[in-house]
Amino acid sequence: MSAHEGAHFVAGAVEPGGGEPFHGVDPKSGAELAPAYLEATGEQIERAAQAAGAAAAAFAATSPQQRAALLRAIGDGLNALGDTLVERVTAETALPAARVNGERARTVLQLGQFADLIEEGSWVDARIDRAQPDRQPLPKPDLRRMLVPLGPVVVFGASNFPLAYSVAGGDTASSLAAGCPVIVKGHPAHPGTSELVGRVVHDAVQRLGLPAGTFSLLHGRSNALGAALVQHPAVQAVGFTGSHAGGRALFDLAARRAQPIPVFAEMGSANPVVVLPNALAARGADVAAALAASALMAQGQFCTSPGIVLTLDGPGNDAFVAVLREKLTGAAAGPTVHASIRAGYERALGEVKALPVTAVSSAVASGSSDVCPVLLAATPSAVLDNPRLRSEIYGPAVLHVTCRDAAELRRVCESFDGHLTATVHGDGGDLAAYPEVIAALRRRVGRLIANGVPTGVEVCPSMVHGGPYPAATDPRFSAVGTSSIQRWVRPACWQDWPQALLPEELRDDNPRGVRRTIDGRVV
Amino acid sequence: MSAHEGAHFVAGAVEPGGGEPFHGVDPKSGAELAPAYLEATGEQIERAAQAAGAAAAAFAATSPQQRAALLRAIGDGLNALGDTLVERVTAETALPAARVNGERARTVLQLGQFADLIEEGSWVDARIDRAQPDRQPLPKPDLRRMLVPLGPVVVFGASNFPLAYSVAGGDTASSLAAGCPVIVKGHPAHPGTSELVGRVVHDAVQRLGLPAGTFSLLHGRSNALGAALVQHPAVQAVGFTGSHAGGRALFDLAARRAQPIPVFAEMGSANPVVVLPNALAARGADVAAALAASALMAQGQFCTSPGIVLTLDGPGNDAFVAVLREKLTGAAAGPTVHASIRAGYERALGEVKALPVTAVSSAVASGSSDVCPVLLAATPSAVLDNPRLRSEIYGPAVLHVTCRDAAELRRVCESFDGHLTATVHGDGGDLAAYPEVIAALRRRVGRLIANGVPTGVEVCPSMVHGGPYPAATDPRFSAVGTSSIQRWVRPACWQDWPQALLPEELRDDNPRGVRRTIDGRVV
Repeated sequence: MSAHEGAHFVAGAVEPGGGEPFHGVDPKSGAELAPAYLEATGEQIERAAQAAGAAAAAFAATSPQQRAALLRAIGDGLNALGDTLVERVTAETALPAARVNGERARTVLQLGQFADLIEEGSWVDARIDRAQPDRQPLPKPDLRRMLVPLGPVVVFGASNFPLAYSVAGGDTASSLAAGCPVIVKGHPAHPGTSELVGRVVHDAVQRLGLPAGTFSLLHGRSNALGAALVQHPAVQAVGFTGSHAGGRALFDLAARRAQPIPVFAEMGSANPVVVLPNALAARGADVAAALAASALMAQGQFCTSPGIVLTLDGPGNDAFVAVLREKLTGAAAGPTVHASIRAGYERALGEVKALPVTAVSSAVASGSSDVCPVLLAATPSAVLDNPRLRSEIYGPAVLHVTCRDAAELRRVCESFDGHLTATVHGDGGDLAAYPEVIAALRRRVGRLIANGVPTGVEVCPSMVHGGPYPAATDPRFSAVGTSSIQRWVRPACWQDWPQALLPEELRDDNPRGVRRTIDGRVV
Repeated sequence: MSAHEGAHFVAGAVEPGGGEPFHGVDPKSGAELAPAYLEATGEQIERAAQAAGAAAAAFAATSPQQRAALLRAIGDGLNALGDTLVERVTAETALPAARVNGERARTVLQLGQFADLIEEGSWVDARIDRAQPDRQPLPKPDLRRMLVPLGPVVVFGASNFPLAYSVAGGDTASSLAAGCPVIVKGHPAHPGTSELVGRVVHDAVQRLGLPAGTFSLLHGRSNALGAALVQHPAVQAVGFTGSHAGGRALFDLAARRAQPIPVFAEMGSANPVVVLPNALAARGADVAAALAASALMAQGQFCTSPGIVLTLDGPGNDAFVAVLREKLTGAAAGPTVHASIRAGYERALGEVKALPVTAVSSAVASGSSDVCPVLLAATPSAVLDNPRLRSEIYGPAVLHVTCRDAAELRRVCESFDGHLTATVHGDGGDLAAYPEVIAALRRRVGRLIANGVPTGVEVCPSMVHGGPYPAATDPRFSAVGTSSIQRWVRPACWQDWPQALLPEELRDDNPRGVRRTIDGRVV
């Protein structure tokens, strides 16, 4: 068996698709990579969704140990792919080997963190309120509640993280951990990578004897494939990472269903950065260099790439701008993961350049997916007047804005919609001196960073990767970190239910030893 | 100042509306009650929403002690209204005095529970992951996160709980506790009650020196009023309790906003009840009497009223049905809270009676809002063929279905959409003998009850009042109990932020003494 045969994984079956063919593409040369992938058929979509629905109860009833074993087996499988995985990812995305190995490590770490979380078990937030049969005027019943899985989740693979936010990425790991079957719609920019990873998940599900409908991977390029999955009655939730247009379209479809379902779409962000006066004067050049490096990482293909930088006119500002310009425009053009990313970048730059901005670019982009870093500059009033200047340009572009004073800086910050992050650089009292600027940013973002760069999303319990719309479709959840499991679960309550028939987490003898809230006290 | 002057409370101003007049109505006589209430104007809506938006940051920055004081002051104010409140609620809703006093006690209890919750403080779910500057290959930053308020919440008062789910009810209490300003759209069935309670909240906000936009109450009957509030850009979330048509309409409006916002709509339920064979044989008559009493409470005007009862053919079934019929149809007709409830009940019965059902009613309904209890019967195949038979009839109607065997019972249960509750009566191994029936019910409801009745929603941390659609628009939240605060908050994360500028809950010295998760361990 070749590593790549154009396989879809449909609820335990390994089979080709039946629709239009497409290929992975080497972003550097534009050459098509074998094999061809045939778009998933309507019959395959139906079968995957029906099987996921049929598997939901049995998969929900698996023990946390079984699901943890699945997550760890997937992680082991990803490691066992060795250089085969690195070569395919690199071929399909032009991401360098070190990045691919780093992203694999992060993906395996995520799987392991969720395995640990569910083995420990307290994440189900078990609460018990004991009966008081003699209470007046009415007896109090025995009530017990914990979190239970929603059911099948459709996961849309992201182009920019072919491992960590794709077939076995964070959305899949958190869904499987919760006890929800997963149907992945693989991103068409890296079908070969998706097949390799999909086979790992498929094999692990089979080897561990889990229900066949626990996992499916469907390849395709059409919006119709994703739409059919989101609209299928068996599907109970959706996870998406990508563009605003894509995420909003799926959100709208889900909201219009007869039974609306939750969609968590993380849709990127311009990640504003503010450099306050003392920091600007003392280390403006260093901050500029760090921000440029952050914006240039993977050609700006991070959701958290710093896209808007605000400074106040004063000492250090000219030097800051000079370094930002030099570092950005002095950087070579480089490949994006797909020619469509370059096309989107150039379209976005075209929109922005039609507005009152100045733009300085580096010189040449030769490869079919190459993009050139760009430094844009606009006045605060231009930013206030043009919402397009306040939203993401996906790629290595940074918009710099010099504000006259704190009031103007605050006005610009208060004009922002939601973003994933905001970053503030401040020294010697700066952070305390601009409370309204910082409060305006804090209210608009998921994560507020002091004296750093927004790229680098730590995978840990405290992480928030999400934020007010349009950073995400629901600000109450995070796409990264163990709390992201909360997207796929709901509370269920048992009243006066016999001990022997309760879930283990809710029994008096607490055989799993989880932390619980009993009569309002955590024990 | 009279207790009733037709006042709206618009962000600190006490003023009449300016639109079409309407009155509270005595449901028993149909007589209009003074004073007239003038529908809120567009200008009042705009002012209330703008003020709520303007107050959001300041109200979010209040201390938990300040907000707890507000909640307790509202509770004290409700108690201080004494018989004035009872008289007006009774006049407007025909609910008896004992019920009104009980509902007031529950409302005050809810306010107190949220005050306790936020004073204790651990509900913010603070998580800290400390820096590891020396970690390889990359240093780990310091990350800290907690829950923060979403911003202004629009609350729609419910007709059936004029206190506990209206102006100062659970949605308002949980929103204020979270730090979210509230705009209440008062239910037009009890404007005088709303005014009394609104004045209590208004006075408490003023006396405690909180921002004027913290609270508004707008009266009105039009859908346009609610729509304008839900669509206002300053509004960040919506709480609703009522009909499916109303809740879905608001959900759709919110989903279609430029910035979609969360809507928690609790839309009622038919609350299926299954009586298993041993219980049916041993105590079927008692169960039937208890279910009839539950269905007759407040003329069936509870979200959790038992509307569908399923039994298996066998010993005790005939006696069960006989008692159910006697208790339901032997009960007198009685008043609903508003003539529109009677109209809706008769419309629903008309829809159902056009399907293959038999119906036995009690005799006469004389008052303009009176409804007669009805026992309906249908075959399992009629229920399977007609979704209308599986959904709520709001009022004192019970549909009884005798199933041939366990397989048929299971098929009927698997045909259900989401409900708030399901109840199973079982003796001597019944509950263990029907695992698939019980699993089918469990997956479709928020709360599963053994050997009881679904009415009576305990207010405690373990309660789940919600469930899969159409019981609620989002199954991941509850409308009752302290966990209902989670509807109005989102996580926010601070990275490498200076200690002195962090919220108290996230500082190393933990001055509020809240329970936190530090480096993955709860301390």
